Amino acid sequence: MSAPKLSPVPSSQPERLHIFDTTLRDGEQAPGFSMTAPEKLEMAHLLANLRVDTMEAGFAAASPGDTEAIRLIAREVRGPTICSLARATEKDIDAAAYALEPAQRSRLHVFIATSPIHREAKLRLSRREVIQTIERCLKHAAGRFDEIEFSAEDALRTEPEFLVEALSCAAQNGADVLNVPDTVGYSEPDEIYRVFADLVEKVERPDHVIFSAHCHNDLGLAVANSLAAVKAGARQVECAINGIGERAGNCSLEEVVMALQVRADIFPAVSHADATQIWAASQRLSRMTGTAVAPNKAIVGKNAFAHEAGIHQHGMIADRRTYEIMTPESVGVPGSSLVLGKHSGKHALSQRLAKLGYQPDPDRLNEIFAQFKAAADLHGEINDADLVAMMEGYSASGSQWTVLRTELRTTAGRKPKQFARIELEHPVRGRISDIASGDGPVAAAFAAVQRITGTDVDIISLETRMRANGSGREFVADIEVEIDGRRYSGRARGPDIVTAAIDALLFTLDRGEAYDRAEANQPTPAHAV
Amino acid sequence: MSAPKLSPVPSSQPERLHIFDTTLRDGEQAPGFSMTAPEKLEMAHLLANLRVDTMEAGFAAASPGDTEAIRLIAREVRGPTICSLARATEKDIDAAAYALEPAQRSRLHVFIATSPIHREAKLRLSRREVIQTIERCLKHAAGRFDEIEFSAEDALRTEPEFLVEALSCAAQNGADVLNVPDTVGYSEPDEIYRVFADLVEKVERPDHVIFSAHCHNDLGLAVANSLAAVKAGARQVECAINGIGERAGNCSLEEVVMALQVRADIFPAVSHADATQIWAASQRLSRMTGTAVAPNKAIVGKNAFAHEAGIHQHGMIADRRTYEIMTPESVGVPGSSLVLGKHSGKHALSQRLAKLGYQPDPDRLNEIFAQFKAAADLHGEINDADLVAMMEGYSASGSQWTVLRTELRTTAGRKPKQFARIELEHPVRGRISDIASGDGPVAAAFAAVQRITGTDVDIISLETRMRANGSGREFVADIEVEIDGRRYSGRARGPDIVTAAIDALLFTLDRGEAYDRAEANQPTPAHAV
Repeated sequence: MSAPKLSPVPSSQPERLHIFDTTLRDGEQAPGFSMTAPEKLEMAHLLANLRVDTMEAGFAAASPGDTEAIRLIAREVRGPTICSLARATEKDIDAAAYALEPAQRSRLHVFIATSPIHREAKLRLSRREVIQTIERCLKHAAGRFDEIEFSAEDALRTEPEFLVEALSCAAQNGADVLNVPDTVGYSEPDEIYRVFADLVEKVERPDHVIFSAHCHNDLGLAVANSLAAVKAGARQVECAINGIGERAGNCSLEEVVMALQVRADIFPAVSHADATQIWAASQRLSRMTGTAVAPNKAIVGKNAFAHEAGIHQHGMIADRRTYEIMTPESVGVPGSSLVLGKHSGKHALSQRLAKLGYQPDPDRLNEIFAQFKAAADLHGEINDADLVAMMEGYSASGSQWTVLRTELRTTAGRKPKQFARIELEHPVRGRISDIASGDGPVAAAFAAVQRITGTDVDIISLETRMRANGSGREFVADIEVEIDGRRYSGRARGPDIVTAAIDALLFTLDRGEAYDRAEANQPTPAHAV
Repeated sequence: MSAPKLSPVPSSQPERLHIFDTTLRDGEQAPGFSMTAPEKLEMAHLLANLRVDTMEAGFAAASPGDTEAIRLIAREVRGPTICSLARATEKDIDAAAYALEPAQRSRLHVFIATSPIHREAKLRLSRREVIQTIERCLKHAAGRFDEIEFSAEDALRTEPEFLVEALSCAAQNGADVLNVPDTVGYSEPDEIYRVFADLVEKVERPDHVIFSAHCHNDLGLAVANSLAAVKAGARQVECAINGIGERAGNCSLEEVVMALQVRADIFPAVSHADATQIWAASQRLSRMTGTAVAPNKAIVGKNAFAHEAGIHQHGMIADRRTYEIMTPESVGVPGSSLVLGKHSGKHALSQRLAKLGYQPDPDRLNEIFAQFKAAADLHGEINDADLVAMMEGYSASGSQWTVLRTELRTTAGRKPKQFARIELEHPVRGRISDIASGDGPVAAAFAAVQRITGTDVDIISLETRMRANGSGREFVADIEVEIDGRRYSGRARGPDIVTAAIDALLFTLDRGEAYDRAEANQPTPAHAV
């Protein structure tokens, strides 16, 4: 089933693994991930902070917009090499050269398909014609870029001896990087290993030329395949933040960088990327494109560092290393959120409370544990801010404020002014109503709520989705806010978007108030919330 | 770097790979994925349709709710073996036995940690005490379950010879399945391969005993690791729909099943799962838990079968196999959505229109292409329904209806009645206003829109999220509706949730109307939209 693997020549020092980021090209090209030029520029700065070696900023010949976005990035961003994709035509190469003019260091990434199915069904070119095209294009490109990368599209389905011929031709005509894409995401690690080991052995090339892997994730194997290529001698991996890209996407930058770092004992090369910038880039990309990262996404998902189950928490409290193979700080996450949930035990609760500065007596602990279980059943997860709120006498499951009335009104027109009249009831402060305007009904309602409660809140994110439940439908609203420089998140459910959003906001306001009270009660709070 | 791999004894027939689904246990245990008992039952039926071999329905000793959910599933669901997790204690095993009483076929899944860090930091047990615990528990369980599975928690960080000893002890005391979890998601394929190959060789066991892999995805390698275990001789893989589970989740059921199927030429075992039920289970789980699947998720993401870029589309039109290694139908997706976007060329557009039954002359094609590019810049992606709408004279970028006025009003109380007065303007039908009530402002507004437009729409899903753009914030609403048995999706942006949701709805109403008109114009429409 698996042929024996050959290791590359062992070296005392791990070699450098070049990170080629294609978030702005292969990633941006996927449905739903389009970015404007200013958005691309912002991402490019984040990628430079991450210290990727090369960033593919776009495909110059695709559209005038793409050309301008590449020029903008080439002009503004310093550090990484800036790259443009090009088909194997003079026109595409000229477009790339123009777009990359302002770059500190430029790379052309020129490609042609080499597999029989692509040659026959798409290009209608013979092997000989493919080789001639490679030669002609690389001669046309010579001297106009600091670096040249050549890709044999659908390399993994190309006849092995023809792949060697095509790559040797590219290397002999000036290509510095030979990229071997698994275009359709069909391969698996042992196969990729054998292909790269074979190419490393057989392709005729100058010494400085390196091999590159570009793996698609159609079978969920992009990261494993890229790592197998590295074991076989590849020294560049093409990847994208959050693994975005055509269809099931590309190799995830964050996963490949962290796998190499965490298992430096196994892999023969390391990247020079600054992993602590991963979180910021991932979050920004998600917000910019309006596409949430799955909570169970490796490295950057909301749950990636969350340890809920009672058993696991017991272990985590005893020794972090029992369940944590890397720290959240190493990828730039503000802090490990040991989330409690319905599976958490009293031991975990009591330990967590102690870390927050509370040491309730057994009776009070039982009381809080019961509240906690009820809230966990309702909300699924309980964080530090919720625990502080419970200890300070706030409800664990909802806000102390009750919404009595919501009136939303819009004036005429496409760009109308929106008004909201809200009436709330508070156990101590009684009934209060106020009116406010905003960009829309939710903004107006939020403004009215802030006037009534006397709080100043910055909304960081708000997402709602329809959730089918047994009897019908409900909306779930997830909100994240900043109050006095601290972040709180809240979730509420309701029969409607607006109601759920207002309830979620009220919930976070309670959390902020609870924190203030805790601070007032305890001169030195043990931990930030 | 990599030791040579040994293949298992070759056989002419591929062996059976048992699929052990843990969506309802390890998956459900993750923050944000809690399910109620009726929700778990619904998922269990979908898993039975999928023909998983075993489903872990919960952890009976965790809570009375868990016990009842397992009993419910054990009573109602036929086909797969029903399993409960249990710690290595008599009490947990008794709870599992009670919960599984009604099962057609039951399995106990009992575990204890074997790694030094877990033994010392968490259990405070010596090796000898761990072995004694295994013996005692398996004797207690004997004869009370149809099958027994034993897991050595954190097996991958356990001393190899002690792991062999612990698993041999379990097998000799009645365990039928020996599970070897990579509890912290730390391992990589070659390492996993060596561990399983070693265990297959050394563990003393009756012939019928099989090895099982349970891989976590912390480094993005869970699927590759599971497949490496299969190559080394494992005959059960533990996995979950959408890869949910603790932290970065478990091995994705859909990815491992499809990798084995697509690369049956490589792997020594095949699953008996019915892959055509994957899509339904994935969609239902996502809706039930209110957690969207990433568009670039392998197999089940919205983009997994979408081919946007012009180059790729040219290839796809020429021959599906150029970019598609499995058909969407094979995993139950209704049909390949060849999504067009700003990177698509005129060739792809013209071919797609032809498939939809339109063959515009060159001038008309240029006109449509310009509209199409403008709409793609705005919306990011253009589907068949959008193309039909353009060809039928509808706007590509928005609805023909203009919202003139939205008034939303809520009566007092926590369970209030909501009213919406909406005024719309239509180029032909003029200004129309109407009032309707609903469960919330959006429901009321939608009802009013349907009264005005005279349509009957079933809302399948509605999601909104805040999107930061250069100057400020906007909301993006994504809606999916069913009109006359056909599905349409729409996206709209606006300064507010409600406005964006209404605009997205109006957009889909135009799409439905365009389809009706197309049907009236063309006696035999080429393709369903």
